[in-house]
Amino acid sequence: MTAFATATRPAALARPVVHAAVIELIATAFLLIAVVGSGIMAERLAAGNTGLALLANAVATGGALVALILAFGPQSGAHMNPAVTLAAAATDRLRWRAVPAYIAAQIIGAILGVWLAHIMFGLPIWQLSQHARTGPPQWVAEVIATFGLLMVIWGCRAHREPVTAFAVAAYITGAYWFTASTSFANPAVTIARALSNTFAGIRPEDAPGFISAQFVALALALPLLRRAPLAGER
Amino acid sequence: MTAFATATRPAALARPVVHAAVIELIATAFLLIAVVGSGIMAERLAAGNTGLALLANAVATGGALVALILAFGPQSGAHMNPAVTLAAAATDRLRWRAVPAYIAAQIIGAILGVWLAHIMFGLPIWQLSQHARTGPPQWVAEVIATFGLLMVIWGCRAHREPVTAFAVAAYITGAYWFTASTSFANPAVTIARALSNTFAGIRPEDAPGFISAQFVALALALPLLRRAPLAGER
Amino acid sequence: MTAFATATRPAALARPVVHAAVIELIATAFLLIAVVGSGIMAERLAAGNTGLALLANAVATGGALVALILAFGPQSGAHMNPAVTLAAAATDRLRWRAVPAYIAAQIIGAILGVWLAHIMFGLPIWQLSQHARTGPPQWVAEVIATFGLLMVIWGCRAHREPVTAFAVAAYITGAYWFTASTSFANPAVTIARALSNTFAGIRPEDAPGFISAQFVALALALPLLRRAPLAGER
Amino acid sequence: MTAFATATRPAALARPVVHAAVIELIATAFLLIAVVGSGIMAERLAAGNTGLALLANAVATGGALVALILAFGPQSGAHMNPAVTLAAAATDRLRWRAVPAYIAAQIIGAILGVWLAHIMFGLPIWQLSQHARTGPPQWVAEVIATFGLLMVIWGCRAHREPVTAFAVAAYITGAYWFTASTSFANPAVTIARALSNTFAGIRPEDAPGFISAQFVALALALPLLRRAPLAGER
Repeated sequence: MTAFATATRPAALARPVVHAAVIELIATAFLLIAVVGSGIMAERLAAGNTGLALLANAVATGGALVALILAFGPQSGAHMNPAVTLAAAATDRLRWRAVPAYIAAQIIGAILGVWLAHIMFGLPIWQLSQHARTGPPQWVAEVIATFGLLMVIWGCRAHREPVTAFAVAAYITGAYWFTASTSFANPAVTIARALSNTFAGIRPEDAPGFISAQFVALALALPLLRRAPLAGER
Repeated sequence: MTAFATATRPAALARPVVHAAVIELIATAFLLIAVVGSGIMAERLAAGNTGLALLANAVATGGALVALILAFGPQSGAHMNPAVTLAAAATDRLRWRAVPAYIAAQIIGAILGVWLAHIMFGLPIWQLSQHARTGPPQWVAEVIATFGLLMVIWGCRAHREPVTAFAVAAYITGAYWFTASTSFANPAVTIARALSNTFAGIRPEDAPGFISAQFVALALALPLLRRAPLAGER
Repeated sequence: MTAFATATRPAALARPVVHAAVIELIATAFLLIAVVGSGIMAERLAAGNTGLALLANAVATGGALVALILAFGPQSGAHMNPAVTLAAAATDRLRWRAVPAYIAAQIIGAILGVWLAHIMFGLPIWQLSQHARTGPPQWVAEVIATFGLLMVIWGCRAHREPVTAFAVAAYITGAYWFTASTSFANPAVTIARALSNTFAGIRPEDAPGFISAQFVALALALPLLRRAPLAGER
Repeated sequence: MTAFATATRPAALARPVVHAAVIELIATAFLLIAVVGSGIMAERLAAGNTGLALLANAVATGGALVALILAFGPQSGAHMNPAVTLAAAATDRLRWRAVPAYIAAQIIGAILGVWLAHIMFGLPIWQLSQHARTGPPQWVAEVIATFGLLMVIWGCRAHREPVTAFAVAAYITGAYWFTASTSFANPAVTIARALSNTFAGIRPEDAPGFISAQFVALALALPLLRRAPLAGER
C-alpha cells in the first residue's frame, strides 16, 4: 500500500497512498490559490499595467512553488501536476496503482484552490473563463513549457532533493514570461483555471488544446526522462 | 532552563530561554522594520502605483525573512510569531515554560521595530492606523495565509534546517499577492502594524478579527503539524 | 570517449561526448527561448516602459538559468557558452577533443531557441536584428560582464556543485542592469540574438565586436581561473 | 603569512594575505559596478519612476552579492566592507595584521568599480556627487542597516558557508527598501559612492556622517557578534 516504488528512496516509499493524496490535494489547492489569487490582486492593483501584473503573478507563483515543493515534497513528491505523476509512474518513481488517487486529488485540490481564491477576494465562487487562449503558437508554447518542466524536474534527480524546489520555481517564474502561453504546463491547473473568469483564466473550450499539448510534451520527453541520471549515479 | 525540548536537536536545546528571547526580540524588531519601513519607502517612491508598492514591499519582506531566519534560526528558532511559538510547544519542539518569554519578546520587538521605522523615516513615533482591513473575505484570507505558513514550516522539518528560511520567505513574498489580506499571518505583527498609520497599517479595531482568524488556522493546522515527518524519519 | 578530464569528478566524466553535446544543445535552446521569448513578451506587455521590460527580461533569464544549470549541470556541465567551454578545456575541466562538439551544439541550440521563440510568438522565423549595440563603452561592458561571469563560475568550484547555478543566475540577473551592454557574455548567444529583430536582438554587424570583447575577457581571466581553489582544497 | 586565524577553517587560513587582498579588490570593484552601474541603467530606463529604479537597483545589487560572496568567499571571506573586516578581526576570524591590506584593497577596489561603471556608461570618470543624504533619520537608518548586516553575517556562522551569501544578498535587497538611507552599511562603498554624481551617489560632505553611523553600529554589534554560535557548536 505504498505510493512510491522502492528503488530510489526506500524510507519515503513506506507512506500510504491516502496520506500522499491528501498532501497532493492541499498542495495543489495552494498552488491554484497562488496562481489565481495573485492574478486577481495583480489585476486590481496594477490598474491596467499588464506587464506589472504578470511580473507580480510570476513572482507570487514562484514563491509559492518554492515553499510548496520544499514542504510537501518529502510527503508526496509534491507533483501537483498529472503530467508529472504520469511521468513518475512511467519512470518507476511512483507505483501505477497510486496514479488515479494522485490525479484525482490534484484536480479536486486545484478546483478547490480556485474557489477559495474567489471567496477570499469576494467574487462569485462559480465562474467560467472568457479568456481566449488558443491557436498553434499557444499550443507550441505549451509543448515547450511542459517539455522543459519535465526535463528540469528529472534533471534535478542527480542532486539531493531540495534542489528541485528551486529549479521548478525558477523555471516557472521565467516561463510565465518566456512562453507565449504564460506556461500552464499542467492539466489539473488548466482545468481549474477554466473555472475562473479572472487574470489567470482560460476559456473552457480552449482547455483541451492546452491539455493535448501538455501530453504531447510528455510523450516527447519520456525517452529523455528515462535517461536522466540519479544522484550518486553520474 | 532550556528553551527547546531535547528530542530533535539536542545541542541547540541547551541554550537558555533568556538568550533565545533576546534573539526573538531583535529578529522580530527587524521583521517589522522590514514590513513597515519598506511600506513607507514604497509608498513614497511609487507615487500612487500601488502594484509597484506592494511588489517592493513583498520583495523587501521576503529578503528580510531569508536573512533573519538563516541568522537567528540556530539561536532561537527565529519564530518571530506567537502562532509559530504555540505550535512549536504543542508539537514538542519548544518547552511550554519558554512560551511566555518568547511571545512577550515577539510583541515587544515588533512594536519596537515599528517605532524604529517611524524614526528612520522622520515620522511621529506614536501612530494608530486608519487602514480598514475587515470582513469575512479578509478573515478567510488570514485563515488560509496562517494555515499555509504553518504547513510550510512544519513540512520543512523533513529537510535539514536552512531550507525553512527560503520556504518561509518565498511563501510570504507570494502570499502578499495571493491572499486578499496581504498575509499578516502573525499576531505580534498584527498588533504592531496597528501602531503605524502607513502603507502596512491595520486599524486597531480590525486587529482582533485578524488575530482570531490566525488562531483558527492554528487550531485547524495542529492535527496535520503533528503528522509532519522529521528529517531522517521519512 | 569521455567529455571531461578525470581529475575532479571521475564518475561524471565517464559520459560520452555525444550525450553531453545533445544536453548542451537542449540547454542552450532553452536559454535563448528564455532570453528572446521573455524579451518579446516584455516588449508587448510593458507598453513602452523599457525599465519594466528589462526587469522582466532579467528575472526570466535568471529563473531559466537556475533551472537549466541545476538540471543539466550534472550531465554536461551546462556550459551553454563557448567561452565557458574553452575556459573549461584550458583549465583541465573538459577534454580538448570535446570542445568542437560542445561549441557546435551551443551555436545550433542557440539558433534553434531563437527560432522556437519566434514560432511561439507568431513572428517570422527568419529575422535579422536592427538593434545597434556598438562602441567602446559597450565593448568595455562585455569585457567586464564576461570576465565577471568566468570568475564567478570558477570561484564556485570551491563549493559543491549546485551553488554554481544560483551564483550564475544571480550574476546575470544583476548584470542585465549593471553592465551597459545588458551582459551578453556569450558568443553563441550573441550569434543567435543577431537573428532576432526583437527586444533582445543585436545587429549582425555589431556581433563581432561583442564576441571579440568576450574573448578578450577570456584571455584576461584565464590566469586567475587557473588559481581558483577546488572544493576540499582550500 | 596567512590572513585568517586558524580556529575555524584551518585549510582556508593558509592562503597568503596578498592573494586575499587581490580577491577583495576584485570583489569590491564588482560590487560597486553593480551598485552604481545598475543605478545609472535604472535611472535611464525608468524615466522618472524612482520606485521602479530602486527596485531594479536592489535586485541587481542582491544578484551581484549572491554571486560575489559564493565565488570569492572561499578565497578571502568576500568581506568587501571595512566594517566586516574589523568585526572579523575583533572576533578572531581574521588576523589583525591582515586588516590594513584588506581595507586598502576594499577602498581601492570600490573606487575602481565606480570608475569602470562610469566608463561603461560613457560618463566622465571623475565625478563628485551632489546627492544630499544627511540628518538624524538617515544616520539612524545607517546604524540599523549596518547593525543588522553584521548580525546576519555572524548569525550565519552557525551554518555551513554558502548560506551567508544568500542571507547577505537577501538582507541588502530588502534593506534598500526598508531603511531610509537605502542601506549603504559599508564605509568603502560610502567613500566610492561619493565619487559618482548618479542615482547611487552621496555628497562627499555627507559621507562622514554615514561612515560614523556605520562605526557606531559596529561598536553596538560587537558584544553580540562575540556570542554568535559556530557551526557544530549549537
